[in-house]
Amino acid sequence: MTTQTFGERLADTIDRHGHLCVGIDPHTYLLEAWDLPVSAVGAHEFGLRIIEQLKGRVGIVKPQVAFYERFGANGYRVLEDVFEAARAAGLLVIADVKRGDVGSTLEAYAEAWLTPGMPLEADAMTINPYQGFDTFKYPLQMAGEHHKGLFVLAATSNPESASVQTARRVRGSQEGRSVAGGIAARAALWNREHYANRTKGSIGVVIGATVDQELLGIDVDDLAVEPDTPILAPGFGKQGAKFEDVKRIFGRSAENVIVTSSRSLLEGGLSGLSEAIDVQNDVLRAAFA
Amino acid sequence: MTTQTFGERLADTIDRHGHLCVGIDPHTYLLEAWDLPVSAVGAHEFGLRIIEQLKGRVGIVKPQVAFYERFGANGYRVLEDVFEAARAAGLLVIADVKRGDVGSTLEAYAEAWLTPGMPLEADAMTINPYQGFDTFKYPLQMAGEHHKGLFVLAATSNPESASVQTARRVRGSQEGRSVAGGIAARAALWNREHYANRTKGSIGVVIGATVDQELLGIDVDDLAVEPDTPILAPGFGKQGAKFEDVKRIFGRSAENVIVTSSRSLLEGGLSGLSEAIDVQNDVLRAAFA
Repeated sequence: MTTQTFGERLADTIDRHGHLCVGIDPHTYLLEAWDLPVSAVGAHEFGLRIIEQLKGRVGIVKPQVAFYERFGANGYRVLEDVFEAARAAGLLVIADVKRGDVGSTLEAYAEAWLTPGMPLEADAMTINPYQGFDTFKYPLQMAGEHHKGLFVLAATSNPESASVQTARRVRGSQEGRSVAGGIAARAALWNREHYANRTKGSIGVVIGATVDQELLGIDVDDLAVEPDTPILAPGFGKQGAKFEDVKRIFGRSAENVIVTSSRSLLEGGLSGLSEAIDVQNDVLRAAFA
Repeated sequence: MTTQTFGERLADTIDRHGHLCVGIDPHTYLLEAWDLPVSAVGAHEFGLRIIEQLKGRVGIVKPQVAFYERFGANGYRVLEDVFEAARAAGLLVIADVKRGDVGSTLEAYAEAWLTPGMPLEADAMTINPYQGFDTFKYPLQMAGEHHKGLFVLAATSNPESASVQTARRVRGSQEGRSVAGGIAARAALWNREHYANRTKGSIGVVIGATVDQELLGIDVDDLAVEPDTPILAPGFGKQGAKFEDVKRIFGRSAENVIVTSSRSLLEGGLSGLSEAIDVQNDVLRAAFA
């Protein structure tokens, strides 16, 4: 078993392959564009073919589990295969599941996605804080024990989220902060307390590239205090943010940003994927140069 | 296909069988107490045996999906069987999945759990509003088309949730309300606009029986304006609220409350389940008399 923390593996991966993370999102319209059936079989092929193309060129994948779950147990069966292929290709796998619950129920979700040797083992999972950051006790503990990572939803890239995520806390240790800002502060604090000697902590946050950080009560510079807090950033590409702007958007935290990209890479079908990866990798490298 | 809405089916079920909803939660310690293996096979047996005992005596079950998901595709395979057995027994099935996401991703989750004929078809699912009530467009639409229900997390029964759920909204149509209160208001509004001629709407909320409603900014009387908004209420039994107090806790909304019970029913093993159901049903009937 690896002895590097997730944050350290992430730092190595970014050093080696850059910031690009490919979302494996078998939308119906993408399966059709790829001439694949809209079924578990199609979603299986879709995942495996993407992974073949990424090997050695991109370091991180983010399978969107909803698009497998819609096919029930058959979807999960092929998802296990996709995860295995991604691990075999040396990719870091972030399971985009956005699970949230309490106590032993959330522990069961973390067991599913973060336990070494389990069929759905990923390197990290996304997690939903609606029931409070303090419900994360077991996932945080499992991340520590198994060298896994979490990405906590903080300020998501969709405009509908502002009503909840900008709300002002009136209780608890983050009183006075926004909902999103309190989540980000708790993640950074956890990293300082548990990953003090690492360059990056293992507990990341999701902050959309398109969000108004001031409105959401997020100060990204606060996340760039060692150990840095990783940021999983949707919102680039089709959703409107430009890869070129990653440093302007995330400032001192840009080095810790995982730039997710999916539809803009995948819409050209399998034949267009290789070139699309090269183009996006080049643009991102230039943005960080 | 049924032409009754979920809210109408729920009203009929409560009339016929009362308010009790049994949580099918194959915790590790419960599988051990039932002399079952801690595996998909064990969780399968656990679900099927509970359903056998409930037939004709209880109207609603709430499988906790996390405890199946932890076994990966094998867990989902047996969960499909458990759902099929529950449907065959005439039980209303609330899939406790707490899914949340945006756009077509949340649509894929709703497709998994709310589509007639799909292997994981349930009557209703729980759903997480961290990304905003307005992300629910497709699930709300699917609930309408397929006569399904949603239960939106509002004020959950765990104390760690207060920091997020009591936060005060500073934007949007629910400005000035708490996060939880805004969710409940949106669900009630949706029911008034889309289920006007029904006794109960199909869009419910999760409100823990143990929460301080005033602190959370929830007025349960506002949910008892026709069409009534169903309330899925955890927190009874092991978590501290007493069945006897359901009317005191939920006031005019008590008639719309689904009282979930799991560990207190299941800890006595299979041999104790039948008697435990009778006892809880009796206590609840007396509470509503």
